Amino acid sequence: MARVVVDVMLKPEILDPQGQAIARKLPQMGYEGVVAVRQGKRFEVELEGPADEAALERVNKIAETLLANPVIENFEVRVL
Amino acid sequence: MARVVVDVMLKPEILDPQGQAIARKLPQMGYEGVVAVRQGKRFEVELEGPADEAALERVNKIAETLLANPVIENFEVRVL
Repeated sequence: MARVVVDVMLKPEILDPQGQAIARKLPQMGYEGVVAVRQGKRFEVELEGPADEAALERVNKIAETLLANPVIENFEVRVL
Repeated sequence: MARVVVDVMLKPEILDPQGQAIARKLPQMGYEGVVAVRQGKRFEVELEGPADEAALERVNKIAETLLANPVIENFEVRVL
């Protein structure tokens, strides 16, 4: 049994109002030194079998079709 | 300028209906071999200065008070 992580982030050119709201709030809370915040999603996918090449390819397909929106988001699959 | 990642996941004992919905949908879409999916958040925090000990401590505090809900979520801070 293996665990694979899929990180999904908005593409750099896509506006991220949630991240901006967090970044703007920080100085008011007394936290200086943060230039920007981007918010994305993280999925932990537990596989029945090993994280071999075929399994990772399948997770890539799942990420592309279900977990991310490839028009506005980038994703990365990696073994935990 | 350094980039730090904060991963926020629901604690294992907390129910994750979003992740469950994804896991249930997969066989219907033709994807077999996935036992479970957990959905969390990923923040990319860009710092003005280096990711030294003091900066990481600050990001830990930010995660604890603003990015995660420590009652139901675990978080992890790491340098990208």
